[in-house]
Amino acid sequence: MPAALPDPQRIMARCDALARCSEQEGALTRIYLSPELKAASALVIEWMREAGMQARIDAVGNVVGRYEGERPGLPCLMLGSHLDTVRDAGKYDGMLGIVTGIDCVHALAAAGRRLSFAIEVVAFGDEEGVRFGSTLIGSRAVAGNLPAAVLDDRDAAGRSLAQALRDAGFDPGQVAAAARRHDELLAYVELHIEQGPVLEAAGLPVGVVSAINGFTRMRVTLGGTAGHAGTVPMGMRRDALAAAAECVLAVERIGGAVAERVATVGRIEAMPGALNVIPGEVRFTVDTRSPSDSSREAAVAEMRQAFESTAARRGLSLQLEVLQQQSATTCAERLQARLERAVAAEGIAIHRLPSGAGHDGMAMSAIADVAMLFVRCKGGISHNPAESITAEDAGVGARVLQRFIEAYQA
Amino acid sequence: MPAALPDPQRIMARCDALARCSEQEGALTRIYLSPELKAASALVIEWMREAGMQARIDAVGNVVGRYEGERPGLPCLMLGSHLDTVRDAGKYDGMLGIVTGIDCVHALAAAGRRLSFAIEVVAFGDEEGVRFGSTLIGSRAVAGNLPAAVLDDRDAAGRSLAQALRDAGFDPGQVAAAARRHDELLAYVELHIEQGPVLEAAGLPVGVVSAINGFTRMRVTLGGTAGHAGTVPMGMRRDALAAAAECVLAVERIGGAVAERVATVGRIEAMPGALNVIPGEVRFTVDTRSPSDSSREAAVAEMRQAFESTAARRGLSLQLEVLQQQSATTCAERLQARLERAVAAEGIAIHRLPSGAGHDGMAMSAIADVAMLFVRCKGGISHNPAESITAEDAGVGARVLQRFIEAYQA
Repeated sequence: MPAALPDPQRIMARCDALARCSEQEGALTRIYLSPELKAASALVIEWMREAGMQARIDAVGNVVGRYEGERPGLPCLMLGSHLDTVRDAGKYDGMLGIVTGIDCVHALAAAGRRLSFAIEVVAFGDEEGVRFGSTLIGSRAVAGNLPAAVLDDRDAAGRSLAQALRDAGFDPGQVAAAARRHDELLAYVELHIEQGPVLEAAGLPVGVVSAINGFTRMRVTLGGTAGHAGTVPMGMRRDALAAAAECVLAVERIGGAVAERVATVGRIEAMPGALNVIPGEVRFTVDTRSPSDSSREAAVAEMRQAFESTAARRGLSLQLEVLQQQSATTCAERLQARLERAVAAEGIAIHRLPSGAGHDGMAMSAIADVAMLFVRCKGGISHNPAESITAEDAGVGARVLQRFIEAYQA
Repeated sequence: MPAALPDPQRIMARCDALARCSEQEGALTRIYLSPELKAASALVIEWMREAGMQARIDAVGNVVGRYEGERPGLPCLMLGSHLDTVRDAGKYDGMLGIVTGIDCVHALAAAGRRLSFAIEVVAFGDEEGVRFGSTLIGSRAVAGNLPAAVLDDRDAAGRSLAQALRDAGFDPGQVAAAARRHDELLAYVELHIEQGPVLEAAGLPVGVVSAINGFTRMRVTLGGTAGHAGTVPMGMRRDALAAAAECVLAVERIGGAVAERVATVGRIEAMPGALNVIPGEVRFTVDTRSPSDSSREAAVAEMRQAFESTAARRGLSLQLEVLQQQSATTCAERLQARLERAVAAEGIAIHRLPSGAGHDGMAMSAIADVAMLFVRCKGGISHNPAESITAEDAGVGARVLQRFIEAYQA
């Protein structure tokens, strides 16, 4: 057992406390550089200090706490997650990783222990990208690869990121000061709720992430001929929705043909959209994700072929536009193995799974090996007020992280 | 050849003149009981009188012209179509049948001919149902089966049909006076543009309608589970859109399995409708039409079975609601045969086809045998400013109708 133990009740209570820093009464929305984020950051700083850490807010609004090792200035094991939320969010997505990291340090400090490396806990100010459309602003700044152009991105009110930084007391010219050097970090390790149903189905409180899936997002437009639903015989139609239906089923079939690969049509619009009119144009989106870039690329190529074949057979036009693309982030094998030893030490079966959602580790992988520990969440529900975890699972997650930290070799 | 001939140039010119009676400059919208309809009715009355008819406006705003036979008061062969339009309409849908009917009478009158029956031409004030949602108000009133409740239907401005009748100078208490008795009519015959692509594809200017298709309109709701497009493995999904895609293809397959039957999914909505969220609920409509009621009913039963099987296999809920249902109106065999003789006499190949769109004959069949003659339209396009016919085809249609009238035996 570790010499010192984190406190699951305190972890849960702190998630509740952070949830009260919200735009709305009775619901949780906390976007980047908002007064609510400032309030939440103040709580985090207080808890960090209580846990024996030095705490500061960096040049883009991330909260950074540092617990020195046996001597000051040692490279750090960085723990962290994000403090911003989606609109009408749950209480654990992001926050659980921050408060658990602080609690692990708190346990060490309470036992008066210093390790052969420093520990830092970072609460990233923007991961979700709700305000400026662009995700991972906090961790990309820490990784030193936030493009300057992002400063011109605007929020719904038309305010640029640069202006929002100024309004919040930061200097947009100093964004680079948030960047950390590769040699300052031993690794970046994030505890996060799974946001999916896999651990619950497996009956396990935690799982070790193998990779953060890469994704390809596309918009597809099929052009046929609108017509009267009564007067055009079936054999003379160029029905864009019937063609799109074939494509939706192709996405499902191709996506699921390889384990751990997923593909989804989330949006569909049929024009003109009247009960008695044959759809002349249909637009839909495809979101394909995989822990393996080659598997994802193969799926996209197969889908393109399937769409082209449907369009050609039915005499429709096809446009396919890639909206976004991101390579997979593989979690470092050495870190996965260490996390697994910590899981096994808790008497829990080891389960590796990919992360289908994006996380700060995608950005942090530019300057450090990354790893993630997932905590089971109820029904796989996230980005929703119904997001729920148990204190027991929070405790298991915290103890695994604590064991991992204490067993870490710099 | 008939003794007297209708004039296709005049027919086309009169369609152009009616198209100028519109809400908008440069586009055609003319709804029931509007000032534009009143202006168009005045033109029609003038042309009827010019053609030797007595003309009147009935109790619901239909224009009724009568050309007496060899002696006054004989039963009539009723010709007609509708004078109202959809929004941003074409110039021929409805109007062509009215002006052609008048032109046939004009030719008879010019030759000084009286027949063994009277001829009436009716310009129905409402077929499209744009203003009050409820279609065929004009012809249902003439057929004597307009439900009293329709008087309470309201337009977009909140005005009831009863009030709109009063505002236009009619007495809503007198609607029943528009009704005609069965023994006053020998038959109801309507010339109309096809509004579909069948005659154009067959290379024929006219075709004889076998039946006005019956229809069943349904709304289908599939309920699955919304989820994160990245975190829910393919095998754990209850994707409502993938299920709906199977249903859309079933509608297409089942609809097209029998000649002359059609089925269309015109509207589809996937909720919540985000690129990165698995659709948890999908609603779509199904419009099924057939000249045979048993074939339509069989299709609806097969679709229901296919939807149930998809929902059951995928673990989704299914709701199926019938929104509207209408039996087919079979055109009288004796009238079809007479129309075909007239077509053949013009040296044109005989082509029978069902009408996929609804027409006033559906209402008129309550008091008379009905028949329809379709005139080819360009690209099958209707309910659209691009609606187009040639003067040559209008001439063929008019001559066929004229031959039919002159050969008719009371």
